[in-house]
Amino acid sequence: MVKAGIIGVNGYTGGELVRLLAGHPRVEIVAASSRSQAGRRLAEIFPSLRGVAAGDLPVVPPEDPAFSGCELLFLCTPHGVAARLAPEFLRRGGKVIDLGADFRFRSAELYEQWYKVTHAAPSLLAEAVYGLPELHREEIKKARLVGNPGCYPTATLLGMAPLLKAGLVKEGPVIIDAKSGVSGAGRTPRDDLHYAEMYGDFRAYGLTGHRHTPEIEEEAGRVAGREVRVIFTPHLLPVSRGLFATIYLPAARSLSNAELFEIYQDFYTGEPFVLPLPEPFLPQTKGVLFTNRCQVAARFDPRTGQIIVLSALDNMVKGAAGQAVQNMNLLYGFDETLGLETPGIWP
Amino acid sequence: MVKAGIIGVNGYTGGELVRLLAGHPRVEIVAASSRSQAGRRLAEIFPSLRGVAAGDLPVVPPEDPAFSGCELLFLCTPHGVAARLAPEFLRRGGKVIDLGADFRFRSAELYEQWYKVTHAAPSLLAEAVYGLPELHREEIKKARLVGNPGCYPTATLLGMAPLLKAGLVKEGPVIIDAKSGVSGAGRTPRDDLHYAEMYGDFRAYGLTGHRHTPEIEEEAGRVAGREVRVIFTPHLLPVSRGLFATIYLPAARSLSNAELFEIYQDFYTGEPFVLPLPEPFLPQTKGVLFTNRCQVAARFDPRTGQIIVLSALDNMVKGAAGQAVQNMNLLYGFDETLGLETPGIWP
Amino acid sequence: MVKAGIIGVNGYTGGELVRLLAGHPRVEIVAASSRSQAGRRLAEIFPSLRGVAAGDLPVVPPEDPAFSGCELLFLCTPHGVAARLAPEFLRRGGKVIDLGADFRFRSAELYEQWYKVTHAAPSLLAEAVYGLPELHREEIKKARLVGNPGCYPTATLLGMAPLLKAGLVKEGPVIIDAKSGVSGAGRTPRDDLHYAEMYGDFRAYGLTGHRHTPEIEEEAGRVAGREVRVIFTPHLLPVSRGLFATIYLPAARSLSNAELFEIYQDFYTGEPFVLPLPEPFLPQTKGVLFTNRCQVAARFDPRTGQIIVLSALDNMVKGAAGQAVQNMNLLYGFDETLGLETPGIWP
Amino acid sequence: MVKAGIIGVNGYTGGELVRLLAGHPRVEIVAASSRSQAGRRLAEIFPSLRGVAAGDLPVVPPEDPAFSGCELLFLCTPHGVAARLAPEFLRRGGKVIDLGADFRFRSAELYEQWYKVTHAAPSLLAEAVYGLPELHREEIKKARLVGNPGCYPTATLLGMAPLLKAGLVKEGPVIIDAKSGVSGAGRTPRDDLHYAEMYGDFRAYGLTGHRHTPEIEEEAGRVAGREVRVIFTPHLLPVSRGLFATIYLPAARSLSNAELFEIYQDFYTGEPFVLPLPEPFLPQTKGVLFTNRCQVAARFDPRTGQIIVLSALDNMVKGAAGQAVQNMNLLYGFDETLGLETPGIWP
Repeated sequence: MVKAGIIGVNGYTGGELVRLLAGHPRVEIVAASSRSQAGRRLAEIFPSLRGVAAGDLPVVPPEDPAFSGCELLFLCTPHGVAARLAPEFLRRGGKVIDLGADFRFRSAELYEQWYKVTHAAPSLLAEAVYGLPELHREEIKKARLVGNPGCYPTATLLGMAPLLKAGLVKEGPVIIDAKSGVSGAGRTPRDDLHYAEMYGDFRAYGLTGHRHTPEIEEEAGRVAGREVRVIFTPHLLPVSRGLFATIYLPAARSLSNAELFEIYQDFYTGEPFVLPLPEPFLPQTKGVLFTNRCQVAARFDPRTGQIIVLSALDNMVKGAAGQAVQNMNLLYGFDETLGLETPGIWP
Repeated sequence: MVKAGIIGVNGYTGGELVRLLAGHPRVEIVAASSRSQAGRRLAEIFPSLRGVAAGDLPVVPPEDPAFSGCELLFLCTPHGVAARLAPEFLRRGGKVIDLGADFRFRSAELYEQWYKVTHAAPSLLAEAVYGLPELHREEIKKARLVGNPGCYPTATLLGMAPLLKAGLVKEGPVIIDAKSGVSGAGRTPRDDLHYAEMYGDFRAYGLTGHRHTPEIEEEAGRVAGREVRVIFTPHLLPVSRGLFATIYLPAARSLSNAELFEIYQDFYTGEPFVLPLPEPFLPQTKGVLFTNRCQVAARFDPRTGQIIVLSALDNMVKGAAGQAVQNMNLLYGFDETLGLETPGIWP
Repeated sequence: MVKAGIIGVNGYTGGELVRLLAGHPRVEIVAASSRSQAGRRLAEIFPSLRGVAAGDLPVVPPEDPAFSGCELLFLCTPHGVAARLAPEFLRRGGKVIDLGADFRFRSAELYEQWYKVTHAAPSLLAEAVYGLPELHREEIKKARLVGNPGCYPTATLLGMAPLLKAGLVKEGPVIIDAKSGVSGAGRTPRDDLHYAEMYGDFRAYGLTGHRHTPEIEEEAGRVAGREVRVIFTPHLLPVSRGLFATIYLPAARSLSNAELFEIYQDFYTGEPFVLPLPEPFLPQTKGVLFTNRCQVAARFDPRTGQIIVLSALDNMVKGAAGQAVQNMNLLYGFDETLGLETPGIWP
Repeated sequence: MVKAGIIGVNGYTGGELVRLLAGHPRVEIVAASSRSQAGRRLAEIFPSLRGVAAGDLPVVPPEDPAFSGCELLFLCTPHGVAARLAPEFLRRGGKVIDLGADFRFRSAELYEQWYKVTHAAPSLLAEAVYGLPELHREEIKKARLVGNPGCYPTATLLGMAPLLKAGLVKEGPVIIDAKSGVSGAGRTPRDDLHYAEMYGDFRAYGLTGHRHTPEIEEEAGRVAGREVRVIFTPHLLPVSRGLFATIYLPAARSLSNAELFEIYQDFYTGEPFVLPLPEPFLPQTKGVLFTNRCQVAARFDPRTGQIIVLSALDNMVKGAAGQAVQNMNLLYGFDETLGLETPGIWP
């Protein structure tokens, strides 16, 4: 059993990790921290954990000695914090999966430019691996520090990678119009996310400046072997979970939809968590809720020469905690789907 | 034109008053206050007021001199505040409609027992009128101080009054199982009303101790001419608006549903805002959203000798601001439906 | 591995069974039927099964020979059908769990009176066991035919049983005010359940005549050792899942809330799926979504002498398919929680 | 009083027209038809019309003589039907506003290519006016036949027009990513719009072939004075109402956001129903629900040289029935805002 600790368990990502690890046969949560909730049991902060063994776990402060018994640390902390906590834990021989942004970039400059903080451990960026297994599986297996991708980048990169890799995207901006459930905005109450305010609403936010933009560009460029410029526009859906990206890419040549499907099929052969859908099926968020799966489909528009890619996932699972568990499975040589095989829900 | 002021315009009740008064041909809002939002325009705190003349109104502090030009004051303040503000305004010759609890009771003791504060103007309770026009129309017409009823009491009293009046309810507790949209809980962000938390949930709250209990009992007793004991259990619906009460009353005798309908029809003859529904129709919250109407229906259960009453209204309109406008119409001798005639919405 | 078949897999209950059985280590679905969907794969009718082995299962007609290889049959059929299918399968030595109403009653008369059809296999009613494990565990273990309870009766009976058993409920009608997500109304499109129609609505239905009434009364009477009369009023919540019952019972004597909690704790000691909540916690549907758990709490109202019981469960799991799996575990001597231990979801 | 008739009153667009006309001081609905609902009263098919005079109107068949008393006809019929009904009514001297697609195109060929039916009155296309008042006000005033625009084209054209007119969009495809509430899909029950199916879902539909594409291109081209190619991708939001378009246009030159705002302000000076929002405000569907207003905002992305335009409206009002009333006001020389001045709703 891998002895794992979670720092920042009180947020939605932390709770989702508990949900997934509770059903994982090779891991044991030995410590879970939250400064504000210390002293309570997990079931008191997540009513869905009542009646489950994990619900009895005590929440401790982050400096609790229980963490010294961990070999793996999940960091569910605001950006800036992970970069301060990771070095010491790595020094003691542990492994770290950071669910925040601190280890997602190769360059401290890019991170600092978009996040407006000084990176506390820039020397670790060289060894940190970007935790998108479909693109970096082999590196993750050998890593000790994983920067778990953001929810938007995961949906977007899985949607674009087959086309970028095949050289089917010509120069010109790629447009990413993304929509996410509000759990992505975190658990802290906010005026604009008060239930009655958000009820029945749909809106955009973070126009032309969302921090997931450079993360997408850096990885997309790596796949394409050239610079890729994206415009990324996120929107809020009036649901708790689910993320959908509609991506518009200028095609390098004419393609049939059948040909597009084949390209995706080939690229994702053997991938347990990425599901290219054949015509006439299209992704829908509800089809992947509470699972680690991502549905993708592509269509060519002969009238404009653009390829439209649709990508749907659960922002809390493949977009956060589920992907972290997938990375953990790789780090420890477990079957990659362990603890993540459950069907989705309907209706 | 009646010159009206609104104290506490930033909450949902205040905003709903603005929405209704903006379409009223005989009133002008001359001052609207909020301590926290002073200095902004109304459209900045209610996006739905953009492009409407009322949206340009400046929000002022409650002590702004603009209020001295008002002849009518709507108080949308937490309990305890209205009792401090009303006396001075009445002294200056104005009229007051309080949308809070301070002037809903005949007895300061009862108020103080449930609200745990000392009443600042107990001497005014004798002249304050309980603003449920269907029960107190003539008194309201002559009043200068109206205690506008709570949303739950309005739905419940309109549902029970015909039966209580006709002596059709026998001794024994009356059970009120009520469900409300979350706008009733106010605009201040709260952990448990954060969008992602409340999404998809349904729950009860305030068991055996909700403050609307004595308000319901006092008025029900007045209608029945005897003490009426109720158990009142409120629940939260995962919608922004809409209130539904299911009321169980022990019947004094057997009744057919047709007979029940006739009793309601008779009782509410000529009432513009209470709609008894004949079989097979049943009330539904969506049928009254954004209107000042209340739908009611009653059924007799021969197996248990109970009458089941269903009552549906919009907690922000007939349960708050719409009723306040109806009261204003009575206070000033306007047609009672002025500004309140609009159809509901569908879908 | 138990070889199981599902008749009527295309409805929500059938799909939920697939979801749960897919994660169960001791069962294999060898046949799944739907007359209207025969020829498709399960993932085509449940998008949430894409990427899961169970999603590849072909849907067959109910008379497909694959069913002859089953030792256990789950019947997810409209009432009347199960009574025709069960006898032959039992004769061949199989076991049957019927998720419909045909085997929930001891008396064919009561069934026929409420369901308006002639029972096709009345002689089986004597041996059929009512599948509420918390009340009939030992009989279920020895049964070959289980009548799986309805969603409303499950929530209600689990909520009332401790009080009825302890003789704490005095004579007089018990009032059950219940609220359910719309998945309980089935998968067939209906005018009033069209998305735009139901959106934002709350309403009652089936007043004074819902078919779960006699099922609740029969079982409640058995627990109490005397006749129990209930009024049962169901309502529709604008969510897909979740069921909440608010129950009002006349108390035989005064009780403290702490005493009530103790009574529930004692009654449900060792029960893995019923969670009595201590003060100040109250059940909420979201706390049990997608789980087989039922949260209950009780409060005494000294003002009226009534006990208020709250009970929350997921109508598709503990109210249907999860309970069926729990019954299967008992029928085959498996650990009762096998396949049902997963935490709930949040948010 | 204009005597108006509505053909096809039973759908959502028809009901919305009734809602708006009921509050209009210069119109009287003298006939409202639905073949399937004939014989009922309007309040029986729209519960929100209970208690309103309009709710008492009888629904008649479309050939009812009552229509001969109308001078204005609103057609809320499937495409193909209006082209058959309009000629006869125009011949009798009436005016027609068609809320469907039959009179939105200049060319019968384009219509027939996308709608796959033969146009029954192609000779009327020359005189029919495209009913977007912000672009065709003067023509509408003189028209007797108006083709009321679709919901997506309205949002999109209002969003793009100022830029196209000013020559700020350079060659290259314009990308329109649009999201609509499900009322846009009509009132007929459908498997995929059953409440439990759509609940919590988000999905795309009609990729690369939605019929609003040519309507957008034709009008956009007219404004720009050159051919404009668009890719239009509609999505379904899990709400009943609200429509949001995110539009990506290649900019002809660099612009500041302030400059963009000024361009919109100038273009829409004096327009009562189009609201350009200054930084930092962004459109949101909830800000315009139940109103005839459209909120727009534009941002320049210096990284990619694209302009992002956001446009929000209520698909039932400015996207259908409200715009039809606005057109009626123009046809009869009324104040353009008559019956459409009400504030929106919050929350």
